Amino acid sequence: MTKSEEMPSHGARRLPELPATMRAAIMKSPLHIEIEEIPVPDVGPDEVLVKVMAVGVCGSDVHYFEHGRIGPYVVKKPIILGHECAGIVVACGSEANRFSPGDRVAIEPGITCGRCEACKEGRYNLCPEVQFLATPPVDGAFVQYIKHREDFLFPIPDHLSFEEAAMNEPFSVGIHALNRAGMKPGWDVAVIGLGPVGLMAVAAARAFGARRIFASDLEENRLRAALQLGATDIVDGRAGDAAGEIRRLTEGQGVHVALETAGHPVALKTATASLRRGGKLSIVGLPQQAEIGFNVPFLCDNEIDVYGIFRYANTYPQGIAFLASGSVDVQSLITDRYPLEQTQEAMERAMRNKAESLKVIVYPNGEA
Amino acid sequence: MTKSEEMPSHGARRLPELPATMRAAIMKSPLHIEIEEIPVPDVGPDEVLVKVMAVGVCGSDVHYFEHGRIGPYVVKKPIILGHECAGIVVACGSEANRFSPGDRVAIEPGITCGRCEACKEGRYNLCPEVQFLATPPVDGAFVQYIKHREDFLFPIPDHLSFEEAAMNEPFSVGIHALNRAGMKPGWDVAVIGLGPVGLMAVAAARAFGARRIFASDLEENRLRAALQLGATDIVDGRAGDAAGEIRRLTEGQGVHVALETAGHPVALKTATASLRRGGKLSIVGLPQQAEIGFNVPFLCDNEIDVYGIFRYANTYPQGIAFLASGSVDVQSLITDRYPLEQTQEAMERAMRNKAESLKVIVYPNGEA
Amino acid sequence: MTKSEEMPSHGARRLPELPATMRAAIMKSPLHIEIEEIPVPDVGPDEVLVKVMAVGVCGSDVHYFEHGRIGPYVVKKPIILGHECAGIVVACGSEANRFSPGDRVAIEPGITCGRCEACKEGRYNLCPEVQFLATPPVDGAFVQYIKHREDFLFPIPDHLSFEEAAMNEPFSVGIHALNRAGMKPGWDVAVIGLGPVGLMAVAAARAFGARRIFASDLEENRLRAALQLGATDIVDGRAGDAAGEIRRLTEGQGVHVALETAGHPVALKTATASLRRGGKLSIVGLPQQAEIGFNVPFLCDNEIDVYGIFRYANTYPQGIAFLASGSVDVQSLITDRYPLEQTQEAMERAMRNKAESLKVIVYPNGEA
Amino acid sequence: MTKSEEMPSHGARRLPELPATMRAAIMKSPLHIEIEEIPVPDVGPDEVLVKVMAVGVCGSDVHYFEHGRIGPYVVKKPIILGHECAGIVVACGSEANRFSPGDRVAIEPGITCGRCEACKEGRYNLCPEVQFLATPPVDGAFVQYIKHREDFLFPIPDHLSFEEAAMNEPFSVGIHALNRAGMKPGWDVAVIGLGPVGLMAVAAARAFGARRIFASDLEENRLRAALQLGATDIVDGRAGDAAGEIRRLTEGQGVHVALETAGHPVALKTATASLRRGGKLSIVGLPQQAEIGFNVPFLCDNEIDVYGIFRYANTYPQGIAFLASGSVDVQSLITDRYPLEQTQEAMERAMRNKAESLKVIVYPNGEA
Repeated sequence: MTKSEEMPSHGARRLPELPATMRAAIMKSPLHIEIEEIPVPDVGPDEVLVKVMAVGVCGSDVHYFEHGRIGPYVVKKPIILGHECAGIVVACGSEANRFSPGDRVAIEPGITCGRCEACKEGRYNLCPEVQFLATPPVDGAFVQYIKHREDFLFPIPDHLSFEEAAMNEPFSVGIHALNRAGMKPGWDVAVIGLGPVGLMAVAAARAFGARRIFASDLEENRLRAALQLGATDIVDGRAGDAAGEIRRLTEGQGVHVALETAGHPVALKTATASLRRGGKLSIVGLPQQAEIGFNVPFLCDNEIDVYGIFRYANTYPQGIAFLASGSVDVQSLITDRYPLEQTQEAMERAMRNKAESLKVIVYPNGEA
Repeated sequence: MTKSEEMPSHGARRLPELPATMRAAIMKSPLHIEIEEIPVPDVGPDEVLVKVMAVGVCGSDVHYFEHGRIGPYVVKKPIILGHECAGIVVACGSEANRFSPGDRVAIEPGITCGRCEACKEGRYNLCPEVQFLATPPVDGAFVQYIKHREDFLFPIPDHLSFEEAAMNEPFSVGIHALNRAGMKPGWDVAVIGLGPVGLMAVAAARAFGARRIFASDLEENRLRAALQLGATDIVDGRAGDAAGEIRRLTEGQGVHVALETAGHPVALKTATASLRRGGKLSIVGLPQQAEIGFNVPFLCDNEIDVYGIFRYANTYPQGIAFLASGSVDVQSLITDRYPLEQTQEAMERAMRNKAESLKVIVYPNGEA
Repeated sequence: MTKSEEMPSHGARRLPELPATMRAAIMKSPLHIEIEEIPVPDVGPDEVLVKVMAVGVCGSDVHYFEHGRIGPYVVKKPIILGHECAGIVVACGSEANRFSPGDRVAIEPGITCGRCEACKEGRYNLCPEVQFLATPPVDGAFVQYIKHREDFLFPIPDHLSFEEAAMNEPFSVGIHALNRAGMKPGWDVAVIGLGPVGLMAVAAARAFGARRIFASDLEENRLRAALQLGATDIVDGRAGDAAGEIRRLTEGQGVHVALETAGHPVALKTATASLRRGGKLSIVGLPQQAEIGFNVPFLCDNEIDVYGIFRYANTYPQGIAFLASGSVDVQSLITDRYPLEQTQEAMERAMRNKAESLKVIVYPNGEA
Repeated sequence: MTKSEEMPSHGARRLPELPATMRAAIMKSPLHIEIEEIPVPDVGPDEVLVKVMAVGVCGSDVHYFEHGRIGPYVVKKPIILGHECAGIVVACGSEANRFSPGDRVAIEPGITCGRCEACKEGRYNLCPEVQFLATPPVDGAFVQYIKHREDFLFPIPDHLSFEEAAMNEPFSVGIHALNRAGMKPGWDVAVIGLGPVGLMAVAAARAFGARRIFASDLEENRLRAALQLGATDIVDGRAGDAAGEIRRLTEGQGVHVALETAGHPVALKTATASLRRGGKLSIVGLPQQAEIGFNVPFLCDNEIDVYGIFRYANTYPQGIAFLASGSVDVQSLITDRYPLEQTQEAMERAMRNKAESLKVIVYPNGEA
């Protein structure tokens, strides 16, 4: 952790030139975002103010934008979306000593209580008190400045761009899904569904030392991106039996770990059927249906493990280390770039153009 | 391991009075068992001959008896059923040095290759070469003498009866299901389905130091037996929402581990819905349907782990230790006793009288 | 969690009869404790005030009393000792909603930050910011009232006495040592050193479903207490080769887990040498010497795991569940009882009479 | 697994041109190896005959060559050394169906029983019945043909050279040491001691996705090789406090995992002192001394885990996958090459020239 300048240790430290107001992209109602001028927030004693430099558009942002809800989470009043973000520290609360103005940081978007049973056991992603950016009613990161508790900020090296650092959020999902599955180097992995989360999961499998990585989707641009991010074999789902193809390519064995990231019953069947005996399935994609059929005799006969995945915990330093090592080609994932003023267009792009667009980035303070 | 008598170390060691032939209960076709006189088997160099003293009737035996098959396993020629067994060593192969005639043993019924990837990784229950008693085409234990590889025999103390030792087989399933779930002492457990495997799972949860054990079934005799075997709370499934009741009894939290042993979709739903956040579900019961609906959003939101269970591995010494400690009241589970000559009646009893009968034992050499 | 009375949800809730001052046993200098009247503390928003009903005297309290320091922790000004404690909630801070006045609680003595890497990974016992009762400069529990952050209080059932609940602290050490060693039911355990921590570790091994528990010490009263707490075999260290004796009793195999609780080189050698191949050693006792010789070839040849143990994490609910189940005979451990006024005598008793005294309890508000 | 030619499924399959005798490098007494003509061995039913193409000289070979013993393992009669080897299948036993003549294989040198408790639990490296090449009285691989049980042979791809495949043996030690330590990608690792095992451990840490890898030794050629194999930081032990330097480079934190591979008390101290709180130490190097001092208070205060390492288990496929991926520059490790006839010179070179020589390879059938 670097201290880029000397600061008085008591009392908030702020850059002198901070403005009083800022622009924010506020979703007034589904499909309708407006840019407004709102006050720059004050920081509490344990908080840090971050100048937001890059924000990725996540599938959940698009879902709120389109439907105004995700399952039980309902948008009831105007909300600011966006939670994949990175930026520059500009002010620190009176007790926030980990950072100094000028530090470059990635933001882990969920703030947890640290005091419940889940937090104390190291599974803070299950904290019932979590405040998660852009999950109603908590506002997100499509703003010029955001405040955040300092222990959920992580320093990034100078050579890592803000947009790459923002990608640490979806990357974390893949890392967590592999951690939960007890992923070991040398194992074979299948990633079924190659949206940005799936593609970053491919990168995560590469970082974990996977032997072969089978990546499957129905869209050609995504399959191409998967190769870029480290897949050893791509399996075009349009050709039919993807699981059968993966089994064939593994001499009938199947893979050690399969990740389902599409939230779709067919993808879940494919992921399950691609597993070897004793294999592990992480379910990352949240399906629309409340109930999906599982081949339970297959699960039992083969002693499959199934892991439900909800966000991530303790992944940020690990993810930043991988990204900083340069071994993950995140740039190949970023297809579209918008200034904050065009957040509406950014969301529409992410919503409509799945055959062309992969990851859309919004730059609240101009492109770096 | 006791050596009850001095034996020459080379050449097979046999009790002098061993007969040349023995009685066996052979299933000629579904629902039809005949008693025949067949040769006492010879032992190979690494095998031991065991005088079978007690054999439990398992649900799978009953299923073969009734339907002639279990999924892909089809009975194509006459077969001897029975695989929950214990007895007395009467002869040892030329290289079988672990036991001596007279030793009392429990028999672990699956013989595995020891050389495949699954065996080498310690998950020998997934060995594709396994020879498992009473799984076609391998004959089982409804005979007076059986040969078995010595490394799958385990010594039992004198104060443990043969019928108790035979129960180590279904007990092992429960132990394995809890091992797979990473069961920790002090956790709360739900067992859904209280056939003999479920009841022995209740006993296993007790042995693992569970805090509360919720046991649910539709039959009153089984609920009563569950209390006898260590359940702290019984939940009558006929009253409706068993999962809701378990949640209510845990102040809305749910349990750490749920075991489904009924192989029934409703039981699986109950087991899943009774789990707390971060909870673990072991599926022990093999359902008839190929596909069962799972509440996948619930699995994801709560990061549930689901473990398919197939038999067991490395449980026999642990199980015998528990049984020998006297803390498990196995006798309360044994409701019916038959000599080998009445194996047909024993099977029919186990098949028809679920409201009265729990575990049926066959004694091939007279009751001990 | 029970709410024994209705309280307004905002604003601190206090029992009306709370006094303004209280008695405290203050160690003015080594070997010298004085009783003084000091103010009853105010509670912060997330804190609870507890009327202290029972406090166990721990070896570390005795060490501070005798030497004024433990390694790097030095007593520089008067301090209140005592950290094994339980009591009754008498006031709750404005945001402390988990408890109500009248609730009976055990106190987990370390308050951690919840925000560092160790805390977030579930190993909060390694939190560098921990505030631990009776570790200088933090005052402890030899007082009539103590304030504590609510998330480190745990409800205890009515039938569990305060002195038993206080014993959950040393019990937690044993539980944690076994958790770290991956203790599985059915394993054999050796506990070397039978002070109160060692004796409670014997009880913990029993709670974890150990098969055999070998307990070794040099004092006869401790060996007797070990039998009372669940040891299956006692090994008198005065007879010489305790490890050899344990190996002999396990047919040359050795135990799966050994716990060293004496902090003595000989005990550490005994614990190590009593292990089987692949066995696990937890080092609980803190030795005086900075360096102790290990038989490294033995560690390597046998792939021994060695775990350093520092306090505990996530053990309180588990421990209370065991204690409440009645299976641990804690009373057999408690040999001496003193009112707060005689804390000096209590400390001297604990310091001097190891052949007679096991656990000394101080009652700041009279015996319950 | 490829079948390079059709073979009758019963009866041994042999290449027709196999000779009746072969050359072997036999150590007649310490420091004295002679080349003799001996019979090519016959294969048993489950065995395969391998034409040995490359054999690495291991430190243990050198130790037997120099001293005639390693601890309790004493060379009592002439022995053939060498156990890091790869070659070509030339004959298969009647029941050995995994391979066909012509297949290229790496040889895992220990043959285990598959039937003891250690084998069944997946820790077959602890099998008491193991037959390990070049561990007295079992002959090793400095021969033209060697027979081996088929389940301890592993196919290697065409692009992996035999000498690289032979290096999978020391590589396995590093992989196993990291597996035992629960190594996670993104962690920092220190490797203390950079002989071939240490250097391959550096490569293993790279394969596991380590963030930073600190490599320390006293020899310059080894430090250079460590950089080649993936170390991010080299720490010259001649400069003094290597652990202090590692702590300094990690901002005072220390590393997550340290591997000691030198078998030296100073290296062990360095490895221990370089660990962060909660860090893990794997001891790979077997020291000469029976007893080495450990800083036990440090182990306890910081909850260090220490893992004794004995060979490896279940690492061969994983290791081959890494080596085949081309990410490990094994060639930089191989400094010296000898034909079988000069095995004596090869051993002397390995024994004497530590400042120049890293890994010495013997080619029993000419360089490939």
